[in-house]
Amino acid sequence: MSRPKPLSGFPEFAPAGRIIEQRVLASLAETFELHGFGSVETRAVEPLTELTRKGEIDKEVFVVRRLHADAEAVDELGLHFDLTVPFARYVLEHSAQLSFPFRRYQIQKAWRGERPQEGRYREFTQADIDIVGAETLAAHHDVELPLVTLEALERLHIDFGIPPATMSVNNRQLSEGFYRGLGVEQPNEVLQRVDKLDKIGPAAVAQLLRDEVGLSAAAAEKCLKLASIRCADASFVDQVAALGVEHPMLSAGLELLAEVVTQAAAAVPGRLVADLKIARGLDYYTGTVYETTMAGYESMGSISSGGRYDSLASDGRSTYPGVGLSIGVSRILVPLIGKGVLTTTRPVPTCVLVSVDSEDTRADALAIATQLRARGIATEVAPKADKFGKQIRYADRRGIPFVWFSTGEVKDIRSGEQVAADASSWLPPQADLKPSVVHSSLAD
Amino acid sequence: MSRPKPLSGFPEFAPAGRIIEQRVLASLAETFELHGFGSVETRAVEPLTELTRKGEIDKEVFVVRRLHADAEAVDELGLHFDLTVPFARYVLEHSAQLSFPFRRYQIQKAWRGERPQEGRYREFTQADIDIVGAETLAAHHDVELPLVTLEALERLHIDFGIPPATMSVNNRQLSEGFYRGLGVEQPNEVLQRVDKLDKIGPAAVAQLLRDEVGLSAAAAEKCLKLASIRCADASFVDQVAALGVEHPMLSAGLELLAEVVTQAAAAVPGRLVADLKIARGLDYYTGTVYETTMAGYESMGSISSGGRYDSLASDGRSTYPGVGLSIGVSRILVPLIGKGVLTTTRPVPTCVLVSVDSEDTRADALAIATQLRARGIATEVAPKADKFGKQIRYADRRGIPFVWFSTGEVKDIRSGEQVAADASSWLPPQADLKPSVVHSSLAD
Repeated sequence: MSRPKPLSGFPEFAPAGRIIEQRVLASLAETFELHGFGSVETRAVEPLTELTRKGEIDKEVFVVRRLHADAEAVDELGLHFDLTVPFARYVLEHSAQLSFPFRRYQIQKAWRGERPQEGRYREFTQADIDIVGAETLAAHHDVELPLVTLEALERLHIDFGIPPATMSVNNRQLSEGFYRGLGVEQPNEVLQRVDKLDKIGPAAVAQLLRDEVGLSAAAAEKCLKLASIRCADASFVDQVAALGVEHPMLSAGLELLAEVVTQAAAAVPGRLVADLKIARGLDYYTGTVYETTMAGYESMGSISSGGRYDSLASDGRSTYPGVGLSIGVSRILVPLIGKGVLTTTRPVPTCVLVSVDSEDTRADALAIATQLRARGIATEVAPKADKFGKQIRYADRRGIPFVWFSTGEVKDIRSGEQVAADASSWLPPQADLKPSVVHSSLAD
Repeated sequence: MSRPKPLSGFPEFAPAGRIIEQRVLASLAETFELHGFGSVETRAVEPLTELTRKGEIDKEVFVVRRLHADAEAVDELGLHFDLTVPFARYVLEHSAQLSFPFRRYQIQKAWRGERPQEGRYREFTQADIDIVGAETLAAHHDVELPLVTLEALERLHIDFGIPPATMSVNNRQLSEGFYRGLGVEQPNEVLQRVDKLDKIGPAAVAQLLRDEVGLSAAAAEKCLKLASIRCADASFVDQVAALGVEHPMLSAGLELLAEVVTQAAAAVPGRLVADLKIARGLDYYTGTVYETTMAGYESMGSISSGGRYDSLASDGRSTYPGVGLSIGVSRILVPLIGKGVLTTTRPVPTCVLVSVDSEDTRADALAIATQLRARGIATEVAPKADKFGKQIRYADRRGIPFVWFSTGEVKDIRSGEQVAADASSWLPPQADLKPSVVHSSLAD
C-alpha cells in the first residue's frame, strides 16, 4: 500500500487538531447541560423514505447497503444528512420515555454527497440543541434557544479565541405576511429569490421577482426594502410599517420577532440582530429563523442556523412543535485549525516521560509512572533504555514537557531546569497538566 | 408518519442510558490519556478495496454510494467495520506528522452488515488503543497494552459496578510452533478448528483435525491438550514441555508469553491468564493475542480483544508493527442498560428547576437560573407559569431534584424539605450536582 491520499470532503485532524476539537465539543456539551439539555445520540442510518421525504435534498443522500445484498434488493437505508430528521424519528420512537417539553443536544457526524468546497464537507460534525413540545411549545423558547447558542459560542471565543459570532433573526410569518399583503399568492417563490440576495445582488433579485414571479416593479422594490432592514432592536417594526403593507400574518410575525429581539437585546446587546432578509430557503421552518456569522469569516456562510417548526414530527395522534439551532462544528474548526489560527501547547496528553536507566529497571520507572498517574498526571515510560540525551529528544519530539529521572529529579526540557522531586507529591504547573488550545493572532 | 419501529442491530439509548454511555466513554478516555494515548478520530468511510483486502470479512461490509450516482458508477467507499483498518490508513497518511512509537486511542462507531444477535450489532461503539512503531516495536508493549486495558475496565467496575473482567492471553507463535513441531504444514488450518472448541467441544474438534486436516489421533490429542492449558502464572511452560513437542517457534512463543504473564501477575494478580486455546481465528495477529470475558456474561463472548501484528501497515518504504486492544463498549453496555443492571439517579442533567410566578416575572426566574449556572449548577426555568403544584410535578416527571421559588426558597422534591437559600451562594449536595450511574444488584 502506497501512502494514501486524503479523501476530498472528509476532513480529518492530526492529533493536535483533534485535541482542539475535543475541547470545543466538551465546552459545547457543558454549556448545553448547564441549561438542562440532555445528550441524545442516534444511529447513523435512517430509512431512505424518511431522508428523501422533503424531496429537495435527495440527491445529496449517501445510500448504505450490504456489499453482498441481492442485486435486486431495494435500497432501504441512508446516512443521515442532518441531526433533525433522526431526532424527529427518535422523539416518535421513544416518546413514551420522554417528558415534554423535551430538551436535547446532539453532537454527531452527518454526511452529504454534495460537491466538497470551502465550508461544505461530505462528512461533518454538528452540535444541535432543540426543545420539543407535545402539541404546543411556548414562544419564549424562541428567545431561549438563540441565547443558549450565543452563550456556547461566546464561551468558545473566551476560552479558545474562536472569532466572535453574531446571530441574525427573522420570522417566516413576517416575510410571508408581507408578501401576501402585496397580493402574492405563492410567498415561497418570493422567499426563494430573496434568499439569493447575498449571491446575486438586489438588482438581479428585483428582476427575478418581476420576470419569474410576476411582481410589479413597485412590489419588487418593497420586497427589497423589507430585505434591507437590519437592526439590533425593535425599531424594525416602524421601518416595516413605513412600507405601508398590511396583513394579519405580517402583524403576528412582527410582534413575535420584536419580542425575541427586545429580550435578546437586554441579555446580550448587539449579538442577536433582526435581519429581514434571512429566509433559510429550503428548510421547513414556520416561524422564527436564525443564521449566524463568525467575525472575519462572513464569506464562509452561517456557522449556526435553525428555527421554529410547527411540527417536528407527528405520529397521527400527537404533533410535536419545536425550535432548534445547529452549530456547524466542522465549518468553524476545519478552516481555523487548517490555517493554524488554533494550535495546542502540545499534541499529546502526556505531561511526563519517565526515563529508563536499563531494561532491567523498567519496573522502577513503571512504578514512578503509576505514582504520578494516581494524581492525574498523564505519564509515559520511555520506550527504550537509550542514552538520556536520546530519551530527552524522544520527549521533545513528542512534545512532552517533563522528563523524570531515577535519581529523583525532574527536568523541564523547555527551560532545561532540573530539580529534585518526589513522585508521590510532585505536581506540574497547572498550565502544563494538560495540553491547552492556543490562539495564534499571527496566523491567517 | 406512524410510530417508527427500532431497527434491528442498531441499538439506541433512551436519555438515562446515554448518560451511562457518556460516563463510561469519558472514564475510558481519561484512563487512556493518563497513559499518554492521544485521541484520533477517522472518517467513517474507507475505500472498499482496503476494507475487503483481507477477504474474510467482505460480506459484512456496508457499501456507501451517492443516491444519484450513475448506475454504472463503481462502488468505491464502505463504512469501516473496525477501527484498525482506518487507523492503519491514518498512520500511513499522516506519518510525517506523527512521532513513533505512536500511541493513540480511538472511540468511534463501526458498522457490520452481519445478522444481529445478542452481543452482535450492525452499529456499535468501540474503544481502541494501539501503540505503533516505525520498523520495530519493543516486546514490553505487549504487557503494557493489556495492563492499560485492564486498568480501564477495573475503573468501570469500581466507579459504575460493571462486572469485573478477566483477560486471557496466548501467543500465535507458540501455537503455530507447536503445530509445526507436530509436522503440520498449514498451522492456520489447525488454528481455525481449535478456535471452535467453545462452540462444538473437544471431541468434535479432534474429529475435524483428523478428518479435515489429516492429523493422526495422537497429534490431534496433543493439540487438544495444548488448548486445555490455562494458568495465571508461567507454569504453563512446563505443562507444554511435558507434551514433548519441539520447534524453535514454539520456544520463542513460550518465552514471550511467559514474560507477559509473569509481569502481569506481578501487577494485577489473577487478571491476565495464559490460555493456550485463544486463537483469534480470522484476525491478522502474528504474536501475542488477547480475549476478555466479563464475570457473569461469559457466554456473550469477548468484550475486549486484540493482539500484536508485525505489520499494521506498510507504505513500501516503512513498515509499522503494532500491538492493540479494542473494548466492545456496545457489547458491554447494551445488555447491562437494557436489563436495568445500570441506571442513573436521574435521566436529565438538570439539578434545579426555577419556578415562574407569572409570565410577567419570567425574567426574574431567568436571572436566578443565570446565577446558579455560574457556579456549575445545571438549571432550567419552568416552561409555563402554572400553579406551583403543576410546576413541581413537571420537575418530578423530568427527574429534577430541586425546585426554586421566587420567595428565595429551594425545595428538595424527593424529601419535601424546603429551606431558605441565596441564589448567589447555594450549592446542592455534591451527589446531586450531576446525574450519576447506579448499579442495581437487584436487577438481572
